[in-house]
Amino acid sequence: EQSHYSLEKSVDILGIGRRNLRKIATDERFHLRLDELRREIERDLAEGNIPVCVAGAAGATSTGIVDPLAELADIAREYKIWFHVDGAYGGALALSEKHRAKLRGIERADSVTIDPHKWLFVPFAAGAVLLKDGGRVLRDAFDITPEYLSEERGGADVVFDFFRYGQLGTRRFNALKVWMALKTLGVRGYAEIIDRQIELTHYFAARLDELVPFTRAGEIETAVCCFRFTPSESSALTHAEQDALQRALQQRVEQSGEAWLSTTVLHGRRALRVNINSFLTERRHIDDLLELLRREGRELMKQK
Amino acid sequence: EQSHYSLEKSVDILGIGRRNLRKIATDERFHLRLDELRREIERDLAEGNIPVCVAGAAGATSTGIVDPLAELADIAREYKIWFHVDGAYGGALALSEKHRAKLRGIERADSVTIDPHKWLFVPFAAGAVLLKDGGRVLRDAFDITPEYLSEERGGADVVFDFFRYGQLGTRRFNALKVWMALKTLGVRGYAEIIDRQIELTHYFAARLDELVPFTRAGEIETAVCCFRFTPSESSALTHAEQDALQRALQQRVEQSGEAWLSTTVLHGRRALRVNINSFLTERRHIDDLLELLRREGRELMKQK
Repeated sequence: EQSHYSLEKSVDILGIGRRNLRKIATDERFHLRLDELRREIERDLAEGNIPVCVAGAAGATSTGIVDPLAELADIAREYKIWFHVDGAYGGALALSEKHRAKLRGIERADSVTIDPHKWLFVPFAAGAVLLKDGGRVLRDAFDITPEYLSEERGGADVVFDFFRYGQLGTRRFNALKVWMALKTLGVRGYAEIIDRQIELTHYFAARLDELVPFTRAGEIETAVCCFRFTPSESSALTHAEQDALQRALQQRVEQSGEAWLSTTVLHGRRALRVNINSFLTERRHIDDLLELLRREGRELMKQK
Repeated sequence: EQSHYSLEKSVDILGIGRRNLRKIATDERFHLRLDELRREIERDLAEGNIPVCVAGAAGATSTGIVDPLAELADIAREYKIWFHVDGAYGGALALSEKHRAKLRGIERADSVTIDPHKWLFVPFAAGAVLLKDGGRVLRDAFDITPEYLSEERGGADVVFDFFRYGQLGTRRFNALKVWMALKTLGVRGYAEIIDRQIELTHYFAARLDELVPFTRAGEIETAVCCFRFTPSESSALTHAEQDALQRALQQRVEQSGEAWLSTTVLHGRRALRVNINSFLTERRHIDDLLELLRREGRELMKQK
């Protein structure tokens, strides 16, 4: 339910079709419900459908939450299903001693998505997929050797021909960016930034809790915090009107030119969403954002 | 038969399967044989298969030749099949008044591939596909709007959200590179370079024809020239040995560090392949390459 829209694109492209994508409901903490997953698998098996892949989120886009990966691994193994973890954003937690435990179970995944251009601060277009068996699966799927490139085949360096692992032919030397970033920051450097950003998100949440017209939604597991603008006057509004209020506040904040946040939808209801993803963000920026939210919220209600 | 390997990747990914890809034989000039195409379509229809796409090459990778596009358009229209032109390399001919006529018929294609990173000299990773109806087909296929991006939807600028047209989400601003290159060189600048490179290729071919131990293969329609190293002593060799000779000469040239060329396979036989694709290439470089080929060829035969 909280999975990235790329899963929908993927099943479309694979020809599996979106009607065969089962979105598993999440609980009140926005974690994938294991009982629901099991029920859907059993139902599919009973109907003669073959479940091929279980995908868990490690840092869901909207909430930043991490699904119960170890339990997902158990279920995947039990039913002999491919286990994929979308760690595009949250996979970076692996670099933090303090937060690594949240990913418990990811080591049993058959494949893991990680986007170094997200929480590893590498410039755009550096998505990656890691495979348990080192890419043989990808080569089996994608490798086609045209005759005019065949003189380079066969050597030990063949494993570095990245066009053998995916759709693209001509491509940039993206690995260099990732390598440079790793060399520049190192594991400790990454851990420090990641730890600080999670701490700042908790700080934001704690101060937000003190502000009367805001209500938090979901938990903080990475550096994402969701919440709603809920002034007392809004309790009489319809759900649609309350949703519109969130959008209106987002737009005011955006138009102020001082900060930017997004909105998302959680269990059918619009919410505001903050994701701390710049290593330049400090406490004073959080304080400024809180003040901005309070001010724009007040102005918004005045106009109503 | 001379199509790019990306067609094989595409049918794999689409789930159509390589067994449903019909490679149409080419004639002695390496152009797609229209009679063969028609025969394959008729055979498929007779067997209850539905032909969905006819793909012609405008600048085939190995030979640089351009298929008879106008005739392909006729056949595609006759059978109501999608007509695609792979102009990844040769599409750039459209910018040259002198050579544009070679693409006659491309204007009737439903879709055209063009890679600005090939003959338009844009840095890597700037592949493009042009569609007759301005991209609606691509949006229908790929557009999925996640909730956390929905506040940006609906405006006039929605057509510029390129992630709605393909698989990639987060992406570089590639269009800027293409735009900058167009602004820098302009249509006339491009035409001048393209015309010069084709002329240089003809020059290379003419001088090669004067060299005894070489035999040309195919024609020059873009800036590609294929040929074989055929010293008199080699006429007694088997086909496999003659093929090995081409590879051996390619490797010697590469190891000299002075020039680079590739090999390819034309109608089952290995050939050498020169593609002039740098706007810095001048006549003297061609002369040097010819001298290098002669010298390395002589050395190669001495060692036999």
